[in-house]
Amino acid sequence: MTTTGAALSAQSLEQLCINTLRTLAIDAVEKAKSGHPGAPMENAPFGYVLWTKILKHNPHNPAWANRDRFILSAGHGCMFLYALLHLTGYDLSLDDLKNFRQWGSKTPGHPEYGLTPGVETSTGPLGQGVSNGVGMAIAQKYLAAYFNRPGHRIVDYTIYSLCSDGDLMEGVASEACSLAGTLKLGNLIYFYSDNKITIDGSTDLAFRENVGARFMAYDWHVQSVEGNDTAQIAKAIAAAQKETTRPSIIVARTHLGFGSPNKQDTKEAHGSPLGPDEVRLTKENYGWPADEHFLVPAEALAEYRTCVERGAAAEAEWKTRFEAYRAAYPELAAEFEALQAGELPAGWDTDLPVFPVGKDLATRQASGAALNALAPKLPFLIGGSADLAPSNETLIKGIGDFSSEHYENRNLRFGVREHGMGAALNGMALTAKGLRPYGATFLCFADYMRASIRLASLMEISPIIIFTHDSIGLGEDGPTHQAVEHLASLRVIPHCTVIRPGDANETVEAWRVAAAHKGGPVLLILTRQKTKTLDRSIFAPASELARGAYILADAANGNPDVILIGTGSELQLVVAARDELAKDNIQARVVSMPSWELFEKQSQAYRQTVLPPTMRKRLAVEAASPMGWHKYVTDEGDIIGMTTFGASAPAEVLFEKFGFTVENIVNRAKKLLN
Amino acid sequence: MTTTGAALSAQSLEQLCINTLRTLAIDAVEKAKSGHPGAPMENAPFGYVLWTKILKHNPHNPAWANRDRFILSAGHGCMFLYALLHLTGYDLSLDDLKNFRQWGSKTPGHPEYGLTPGVETSTGPLGQGVSNGVGMAIAQKYLAAYFNRPGHRIVDYTIYSLCSDGDLMEGVASEACSLAGTLKLGNLIYFYSDNKITIDGSTDLAFRENVGARFMAYDWHVQSVEGNDTAQIAKAIAAAQKETTRPSIIVARTHLGFGSPNKQDTKEAHGSPLGPDEVRLTKENYGWPADEHFLVPAEALAEYRTCVERGAAAEAEWKTRFEAYRAAYPELAAEFEALQAGELPAGWDTDLPVFPVGKDLATRQASGAALNALAPKLPFLIGGSADLAPSNETLIKGIGDFSSEHYENRNLRFGVREHGMGAALNGMALTAKGLRPYGATFLCFADYMRASIRLASLMEISPIIIFTHDSIGLGEDGPTHQAVEHLASLRVIPHCTVIRPGDANETVEAWRVAAAHKGGPVLLILTRQKTKTLDRSIFAPASELARGAYILADAANGNPDVILIGTGSELQLVVAARDELAKDNIQARVVSMPSWELFEKQSQAYRQTVLPPTMRKRLAVEAASPMGWHKYVTDEGDIIGMTTFGASAPAEVLFEKFGFTVENIVNRAKKLLN
Repeated sequence: MTTTGAALSAQSLEQLCINTLRTLAIDAVEKAKSGHPGAPMENAPFGYVLWTKILKHNPHNPAWANRDRFILSAGHGCMFLYALLHLTGYDLSLDDLKNFRQWGSKTPGHPEYGLTPGVETSTGPLGQGVSNGVGMAIAQKYLAAYFNRPGHRIVDYTIYSLCSDGDLMEGVASEACSLAGTLKLGNLIYFYSDNKITIDGSTDLAFRENVGARFMAYDWHVQSVEGNDTAQIAKAIAAAQKETTRPSIIVARTHLGFGSPNKQDTKEAHGSPLGPDEVRLTKENYGWPADEHFLVPAEALAEYRTCVERGAAAEAEWKTRFEAYRAAYPELAAEFEALQAGELPAGWDTDLPVFPVGKDLATRQASGAALNALAPKLPFLIGGSADLAPSNETLIKGIGDFSSEHYENRNLRFGVREHGMGAALNGMALTAKGLRPYGATFLCFADYMRASIRLASLMEISPIIIFTHDSIGLGEDGPTHQAVEHLASLRVIPHCTVIRPGDANETVEAWRVAAAHKGGPVLLILTRQKTKTLDRSIFAPASELARGAYILADAANGNPDVILIGTGSELQLVVAARDELAKDNIQARVVSMPSWELFEKQSQAYRQTVLPPTMRKRLAVEAASPMGWHKYVTDEGDIIGMTTFGASAPAEVLFEKFGFTVENIVNRAKKLLN
Repeated sequence: MTTTGAALSAQSLEQLCINTLRTLAIDAVEKAKSGHPGAPMENAPFGYVLWTKILKHNPHNPAWANRDRFILSAGHGCMFLYALLHLTGYDLSLDDLKNFRQWGSKTPGHPEYGLTPGVETSTGPLGQGVSNGVGMAIAQKYLAAYFNRPGHRIVDYTIYSLCSDGDLMEGVASEACSLAGTLKLGNLIYFYSDNKITIDGSTDLAFRENVGARFMAYDWHVQSVEGNDTAQIAKAIAAAQKETTRPSIIVARTHLGFGSPNKQDTKEAHGSPLGPDEVRLTKENYGWPADEHFLVPAEALAEYRTCVERGAAAEAEWKTRFEAYRAAYPELAAEFEALQAGELPAGWDTDLPVFPVGKDLATRQASGAALNALAPKLPFLIGGSADLAPSNETLIKGIGDFSSEHYENRNLRFGVREHGMGAALNGMALTAKGLRPYGATFLCFADYMRASIRLASLMEISPIIIFTHDSIGLGEDGPTHQAVEHLASLRVIPHCTVIRPGDANETVEAWRVAAAHKGGPVLLILTRQKTKTLDRSIFAPASELARGAYILADAANGNPDVILIGTGSELQLVVAARDELAKDNIQARVVSMPSWELFEKQSQAYRQTVLPPTMRKRLAVEAASPMGWHKYVTDEGDIIGMTTFGASAPAEVLFEKFGFTVENIVNRAKKLLN
């Protein structure tokens, strides 16, 4: 903190605060020799107004449950957020800002959830943040409906976002914002920084649409402001707050790199340091000491830091309300606290079904049964499908749809919007540790939502994603709908847990794992077609699924000639092949391997019990790309997989044509032994 | 062909034709015991009007270059298209229709390009078809600008599409349609079947936006019609044809499963056979013989088959025009024919650069140089970036932007719309065999466009996709932008060729491969940071890249102790490690392995020359997930890869922290030998 100079003292407190924000961003980018100065420079007036006058937040407790959420969807402008976090009193020092974009710092090149206090979601991949916000708004509406009672509003926060041209060009944002309009999410207020510039140049090159008119078509409340006019901004936000039945977007005409004499309104202000000369000129233009770096005038800091006291007061006021609520509704209050802590209620899994032998069903059906057994015990298990609810078996029975008329319901209807769903699930998962959102589509369409699955993995948050129709077993719909490469492509994402259960009871166990899982998304990979329910009185229990892979049935003599590894609908084929091989005096161990990731978490001793290094004749069978299986089958093993796309025909024909038959497994196993 | 009954004779010819289309779809779905009858039933009036009165097509020559394109974006309604193809005289028999959705048939469950004559693109994954259409429209505009001359219009076709709620809910369609408005693609006419029903139920569940208003915001020409009113439909299409400076969408109020007494306007009409009883009732409702199946009244067939004669006449008329064009512009005419045949001009690659030792540059820079060397020789190499042109090095120098004012230019500006770009590239590639579209973004954002890459692979069409900033080498932007799992996730897609060149000259060779490649997309994986240009006077020539993997430098004694395998920016580390190992008398072979797919296409003999089965001490080094490498390094080998996400810091710091150093390679190689 430095004493302010002459030029500084001539500035209004507001202007001083705004320019402090701007110059911190400029200096941090300059010091890092990389980054994006233009966006913080253009949006500083909005940042100042929102964070000091409007946002309900407590810098000393970023985890306050009823805080307003702020999402920097245009994550490249992260110095805007870091500067605000520092200035308003979060645990982020000026040294942290000076360490921008360096190894081990709390100020990485894009905001990272879990690393920096006050960062609500990891952003940077465009469109994700605004779509996370829609999920946060859904979650807020559900929690408000669930918890609030007449005279007791303990959930009443708002979701704000700052977004850019790039965010709104991305399809994921279109999907999510259309859904937000349908659901009348009046708790969303987005500030669109319309700076007319993209990396390539003028937005006219590629983006001439009328954004305001588009959002009106989505049934949003649309306003326009001048991005440097703080009074207009404050007024527009106030109007947006009053509009409770439509989401709001404020279209602000801004100027990229505002104040830079030579780079304002040019793409040069976007993704590179301004350079020392232009920094000097810009600071002079702001009436700022040109040779000072990371200057935070004491008056500006004091003004920003009023947030600490007001935030503490706001949270204290809320706590008073919450205690009154606790007095009136002790059970709900306890439930609210458990939700924040991420605790599951006692006995949450006791109603999970066990399916008897002879009751064959598709694993998607077993999943639907498990979901419906869990739902009454887990009120924060909330989700739905991207318009495939009947196929995905994701409807919770006896409960209606979440809609603008019924925010208390929890069957979500995402529409044909896989990507928007994925990003919304992330926003829901980010809302409270105990909130377990789930979404669903066909496995093949994991491709549409992959960017959001990656971000859930990176953030180590745990939405549950149900992918049914997981292979050529989908049948007649053909190769455009048949997953082949998807299992490998999802297994390769760090922190992403993929589970492909082999029968109905493994599916139930997969849900038991998924509902309690932390540290990344869980993907349940399920069949369209029936699978045989295995006789657990002769095979190992299905609960072994939690270990990722287990010996389902060993060689009769305990000394197998070959290990057969199966997953999903192919497990039953492998089991049958074991019986066939036994007829020829070949002893096979069957390993059920529903989840590589869970298996890799086991001890080496356990893993070597299942797949002993000395037993190297191994055959993996999975109706998917063989990529990655070599690691488990060794050089002496083999894989029956899919090396091409599928085809349109009945499933049973396809399984035969592509070699997923007991006969082929037997032959390939014998070949290994010769 | 059956004689028409009494009830039939009472119908107008138009109604007879429409009901023929409807009942063929109903019967085929019924016989297949799966499929989607509702969409063909609802859209038959449009199909009849468009295909018999408006569409410029020659059923006996589906490859006619100047045909209008028709895209069934709602691919599940494929019986609509198959019935029209059969009825209007394409090489698709009534038996083919009866074989709907069966193994080996030409009538799979969703339209597949290359399998069925008259199918312009594979559809089914929603939103792709309408977005392909935007690419087709871009290509048409470019070809028209390139070839047409005053008095000679040899390219003047129109792109039509039938699309559904689901198509327009998908973000990819939003992206592409926004771009179409910006580019004023007046050669697009879309028919949106607004049936108010999705798989989950009413569109009100999830999709209440005003689609017409949204498209007006995109600057489209919007009309509304009643979906059963053929006169209105014809009039609207005529108006859309007259509107040449804006794309057109016709919002048609349709009724899913029209005519089914118990299932019309319900989700039950969507994705399942109507069932024998309802089929009878529906046929009775149509005035159709209830017990006839696959009935094609002779009058109806004759009416549809007028397309054969008119199509032949239209093509003949065009050929006359083309011959006049040839007389006036023989070189352009020859070029047009070569474009259709997919032939590259002689000497197309002679200007490709060779980079000298000492000239180190990022492979993205080498790519930009190669692209600019090819562009003057390859006028149908056309593309751009999703708003990262300066970073992706994709601008063709000296040529302006493709825009509504300049369709003759070929630097495309896709905006921040990776998915729309991917789908548009597919539409461009589908336009003519010799058209080579390219697109670009950061490798990390391959996730956004993955569904389109998959479809290019499935269709075996060959857009070139440039993915730069391919690893932690991206540096400070951090883990949201750093590819880790992407290489594996793309290599696993069948028919997709991934090339990650190791230096500037390998990059040039990668372009040589890509420009001539057929049978699937080519992905060029390029560095942000500089790589060392290897001395080809001592190492194997860069042209060996075409074999996917090659011995860059062998053990001095020809008998290596260890094989070091490198790709991309890690190749130079591996080369340096070889020198270090030599100091300790460890002989290493260095294998450069830029492309698994190209390598797998080589003979086994060649492959075993590079990676002899007896030399099993192998170390692969790649700054990406190790998944899939086990196959190449064997059980005795090792992999230095990325098993976590990256981090935000300067690239050189990250390479060190994550173990991509000469020292670590040397140590790990030695460990293999102990």
